[in-house]
Amino acid sequence: MTHPLHSLIWPQSVAVIGASEDLSKINGRLLAFLRNSGYTGRIIPINPKRAEVSGLPAFPSIDAVGEPVDIALIAIGADMVLSELERCAAAGVRNAIVITSGFAEEAGGEGAKAQARMGEIARETGMRIVGPNTVGIYNAIAPCAATFSPTVEKASEKVAEFNSGRVGIIANSGGVGFALYSHGRRLGIPFSHVIASGNEADLSIADYLDYLVEDDDTSVILLFCEAIRDAQGFRKAAAKAADKGKPIIAIKVGQSDAGGRATASHTASVAGNHAAYRALFAEYGIIEALYLSEAMMMASLLVTGGRPKGNRVGVVTVSGGAGAWAADALERAGLDLPMPSEGTRAELGKLLPSYGSAINPIDVTASGARNGGVQAALETLAASGEVDSIVLVLSAAASFVTLDQDSLAKVVAKIGVPVFVYSYTVISEAWREGMIACNLPLTNDVNSGAIALGLLAQPVPERSMTPPVAVPPGVAAAVTGARESLCEYEVKAILKAAGIDTAPEMLVNSADEAEKAAESLGYPVVMKIQSPRIQHKTEVGGLRLNLKDAAAVREAYDALAAVGERHAPGAVDGVLVQTMAPSGTEIIVGMVRDDSFGPVMMVGFGGVAIELYKDVAYGLGPVSPEKARAMLDELKSAPLLHGYRGRPALAVDALAKLVSDVSRLAVAVPEIGEMEINPVILHADGSGLTIADALLIRAEATTDHALEAAE
Amino acid sequence: MTHPLHSLIWPQSVAVIGASEDLSKINGRLLAFLRNSGYTGRIIPINPKRAEVSGLPAFPSIDAVGEPVDIALIAIGADMVLSELERCAAAGVRNAIVITSGFAEEAGGEGAKAQARMGEIARETGMRIVGPNTVGIYNAIAPCAATFSPTVEKASEKVAEFNSGRVGIIANSGGVGFALYSHGRRLGIPFSHVIASGNEADLSIADYLDYLVEDDDTSVILLFCEAIRDAQGFRKAAAKAADKGKPIIAIKVGQSDAGGRATASHTASVAGNHAAYRALFAEYGIIEALYLSEAMMMASLLVTGGRPKGNRVGVVTVSGGAGAWAADALERAGLDLPMPSEGTRAELGKLLPSYGSAINPIDVTASGARNGGVQAALETLAASGEVDSIVLVLSAAASFVTLDQDSLAKVVAKIGVPVFVYSYTVISEAWREGMIACNLPLTNDVNSGAIALGLLAQPVPERSMTPPVAVPPGVAAAVTGARESLCEYEVKAILKAAGIDTAPEMLVNSADEAEKAAESLGYPVVMKIQSPRIQHKTEVGGLRLNLKDAAAVREAYDALAAVGERHAPGAVDGVLVQTMAPSGTEIIVGMVRDDSFGPVMMVGFGGVAIELYKDVAYGLGPVSPEKARAMLDELKSAPLLHGYRGRPALAVDALAKLVSDVSRLAVAVPEIGEMEINPVILHADGSGLTIADALLIRAEATTDHALEAAE
Repeated sequence: MTHPLHSLIWPQSVAVIGASEDLSKINGRLLAFLRNSGYTGRIIPINPKRAEVSGLPAFPSIDAVGEPVDIALIAIGADMVLSELERCAAAGVRNAIVITSGFAEEAGGEGAKAQARMGEIARETGMRIVGPNTVGIYNAIAPCAATFSPTVEKASEKVAEFNSGRVGIIANSGGVGFALYSHGRRLGIPFSHVIASGNEADLSIADYLDYLVEDDDTSVILLFCEAIRDAQGFRKAAAKAADKGKPIIAIKVGQSDAGGRATASHTASVAGNHAAYRALFAEYGIIEALYLSEAMMMASLLVTGGRPKGNRVGVVTVSGGAGAWAADALERAGLDLPMPSEGTRAELGKLLPSYGSAINPIDVTASGARNGGVQAALETLAASGEVDSIVLVLSAAASFVTLDQDSLAKVVAKIGVPVFVYSYTVISEAWREGMIACNLPLTNDVNSGAIALGLLAQPVPERSMTPPVAVPPGVAAAVTGARESLCEYEVKAILKAAGIDTAPEMLVNSADEAEKAAESLGYPVVMKIQSPRIQHKTEVGGLRLNLKDAAAVREAYDALAAVGERHAPGAVDGVLVQTMAPSGTEIIVGMVRDDSFGPVMMVGFGGVAIELYKDVAYGLGPVSPEKARAMLDELKSAPLLHGYRGRPALAVDALAKLVSDVSRLAVAVPEIGEMEINPVILHADGSGLTIADALLIRAEATTDHALEAAE
Repeated sequence: MTHPLHSLIWPQSVAVIGASEDLSKINGRLLAFLRNSGYTGRIIPINPKRAEVSGLPAFPSIDAVGEPVDIALIAIGADMVLSELERCAAAGVRNAIVITSGFAEEAGGEGAKAQARMGEIARETGMRIVGPNTVGIYNAIAPCAATFSPTVEKASEKVAEFNSGRVGIIANSGGVGFALYSHGRRLGIPFSHVIASGNEADLSIADYLDYLVEDDDTSVILLFCEAIRDAQGFRKAAAKAADKGKPIIAIKVGQSDAGGRATASHTASVAGNHAAYRALFAEYGIIEALYLSEAMMMASLLVTGGRPKGNRVGVVTVSGGAGAWAADALERAGLDLPMPSEGTRAELGKLLPSYGSAINPIDVTASGARNGGVQAALETLAASGEVDSIVLVLSAAASFVTLDQDSLAKVVAKIGVPVFVYSYTVISEAWREGMIACNLPLTNDVNSGAIALGLLAQPVPERSMTPPVAVPPGVAAAVTGARESLCEYEVKAILKAAGIDTAPEMLVNSADEAEKAAESLGYPVVMKIQSPRIQHKTEVGGLRLNLKDAAAVREAYDALAAVGERHAPGAVDGVLVQTMAPSGTEIIVGMVRDDSFGPVMMVGFGGVAIELYKDVAYGLGPVSPEKARAMLDELKSAPLLHGYRGRPALAVDALAKLVSDVSRLAVAVPEIGEMEINPVILHADGSGLTIADALLIRAEATTDHALEAAE
């Protein structure tokens, strides 16, 4: 089946609106780059003043062409774009690429309005629109440069024949997208497509991602994004990629929290604005890169030696000092440098001079570059089966070309283990080209290489079945109908209605009722004031623990009633009586709703672990119990769950079920803006958990509430 | 006063032993590079078979020269080196540089023996020796290339005139040392000297460091080391550098722990082998770089704009996406991106097109590169006083040369705020040279730039007065005379003798004695079995807590005696009775002795904080109480010390004094190999602390003990 974007990516004809020969103008460059790129389809200059542009017959307007064209490239004044788009759509143009800027990115609202109209034109006419404010699209295979990015001027540069396919790039920012492309070209990475999505009036990253996932020419997808607008579409495409095993490398910028917004829950304050993306990427096995160099090394490794099968790395070096440097970087990136077995050490020893070293790093010394020691060490190490990848450390400076690259290429081709080359000296052009010919990624930056290898060596997460999302019909109504700030007993009632066990408790309005409740629940009990105007009960003395008899309960009731009278006169719902939970380990289970991606679950140990060590794990809702267990095992403090230093193992199953249940509640009830169960008292394995307190903020109230808390 | 190494660094004459014209031989390259480097001193080829080499009169041997020479360059067979050195010394040669390898780095012991003999020759004759196994020394100012490193072939490459001096390099590994040099040259960094220390038979890093610290030509020192052999010399030179305010950037490789050695104390297992270096660097304000790129950016910043005065950074960008990327990197590196004040935003707003942004990052858009917006934004931002440094984000690709570099250079020269340039596109040669001319560090690697800026923005640590080290004379003898494994009561006695308060306690040998001891100490008490053969008391039931009366004490005594009989028959010293400490926060104070640097102190919160979060701070002994406080404030969990969330502030003064006291004890008594006070029960401020248990391992016993623990 042909993909809906086929005519955009593989156009048979491209019209350039306002085409000229003037290279100082974007219109001029668009035409020139398209021709220079080697595009073999029909190029149609549109220019009312010219019968011919650059030797090509020109048309006065798009409707004069007389046949539908696949792409119209539009780089004209912003005020003329909308009418031109309508003309294009009327003429049957299948896709328009709007290079022109000055739309939603403008201050004031006019640009945004015009951009919204663009989206409408696309929906009304079926013509798809790229941009506005895009650098364009480049098909490196066709080839077809529907872009004014100067990086494609060198598009004809040769690449070695690689085994594992090509890399496709999608970027919000065309400048960065095409910069990734040109950096990659210098590493010899073969590309399929470069797509700059711009302001995304119509087509967005999700659409392009779907194309590249389906595209057989693309084996690795590299994504640079400031925001993902179509969350559902993105998740669908990402799931397809995960099912196909097609790797996606994503760089998400704009992670820093602009000015620490005030938040009501720990969850919201710890999560920041990147938690949803972290959870999203983890969910679909998308590999997150922070920087260009590590993204490039990952892409390069994926199209050369492929993904390492495990965490064990061997280092072969011509310099002891640089080898130790590489070893440090690799261990920091979470990789293991195993000591070779005795047999392998003996094999390696035969290749080394007396001052070499057969432990890992394997120091073949400078002479190993001259006499074939490097090649032999690579072969021996790969054949040993004791490493999953190899890092070759050498000097790729011009004056050191003493290593026979032909024999190196042959060894690399047959060993079946991914390898990258780290040069500690400045890389010469000859070496750069030589290593591309050897199918070897080459870098000066051992840190990025190590990070890339470390990320690729991580097991691809198994995607757990999405649990069914269904909560009883009354629950959503209860939240929607709730007042702005809910009391603990109200939140607990909602949890209970959703099938989440809470400790038995009773709301009482007199000392007599309190005593009766305590008798029926069983001593000792806890009592808490319940008022929508008292958020922080502890701070006003609104909480009494470990009450052991009727006298204590009556006394506590009177005291709490006085607290209520003082801090929230006329706004007290009553006093909540609960059985005192047996002691246990405090956990926080939280949820924040991301505008794009919906509920993001957070879990961590309470207190210092979250507040000082930020030791939390995230997951995108709905979370299955298996996924929740995996989240728990991501915590640095995970050993505490599993019987740490003689302590009993904790009720992980019950906790995982709780995280899953809360996530499904949050998915089913969009009216829940934020939720936090804090503390969950986690007992020993088999003894379950106790929900000791809970907070819920309605979706519409989230912002107001946050503002209020900040005051 | 002339520095002792003056004749080595600024030689008036250099002899090349075995000099030839054959560039395939190191001897040939030494002669050629020395001549090509522009060296203007006397060059003396030594060659018994030739009257002339490369047009220079040659001598048959060094003693035939007839006058003392400053340097003899020796790259001859390893078996001939010792006799040649003796000949050189006899001929009055002042310094020998031994290029030849095959000494201590060889397997077997012969090479190491020959190297030791080299050290003796130096000491006996006064001739100083560089190497063996060195790439040599390069004086970039003289210039004088006493090295066969091909990187100096391009030594004449021009550099812009910089304000702040030159960078000197010292490296164990000559390959890496000269690689740093050539990377730096591409960034336009001006260098003074490059020194490869090799195997350090005589002169070591400490000697070279002392030279560069004293050297007025060197304003920044860059150090690459695998090991520091002369710890005392190094500390002396580093202290001098700190006093002069001359920055040292250090890269220490070989940090990974080879195979996780078994250790008796938490301290030793957590500290690993890099703790001493971390503590050393912190002590002298040495800035540690992990990778070449961040070291280079630091050096480049230091010789251009200098050290930023604080943590606030402004980003000026021509691309929104790349600007956000830079912002993320800078915040990850610990820098702040303040929002400009209203006035500054208004000023900036005047420079921006309607789609620009005056918040930080300040997006001057692509047009800002063409129309002077970049320059004006730099000036406005610097003049505001609201930032301490600026990162300029632009595209330094060949095809984007639209920015006027002359006016940029003028702005940079006057704004008085350090700036670096991050290019998201591949850097062209023209831009590389242009930014050197502008005195601006330029990088493709925003992460390294951000890390470099972040490290330089940290305040230079104040060096605290080293506290006097004196412990009563009996203490050392007590440790030396102790058996291999000390019991708690013995360790406490040593601490007490050294003036460190421990809780009152008594060793008893019967139930009667136990009761008497408890009565005199006061209830409740703790009782512990004391045997050198019982290391882990809790695990065998050898510890009883919270004993409240005589009956409980008598019962506990009998039970503990039975434990002793079972687990260490005939090897029980008795039962220790202590007052039960009031509850408090558990802290671990530890010490491990580094072979080179002596006692390394470690402090952290007990339990999970150390074991799972590795939240510890290190300091090189002796530690002053002020330094100990600074260590405590390095902890992520430091807020717990100072009254966290309504809890009382803890007795930080008492804890700092304890860390200091233990460090002084460790310095004074080298027989102490490892010490750990665990737990220290830290009480509220004013209530001091209680030492609840302590461990001490004699220096000679450290290794054996570790082995035993591993069994």
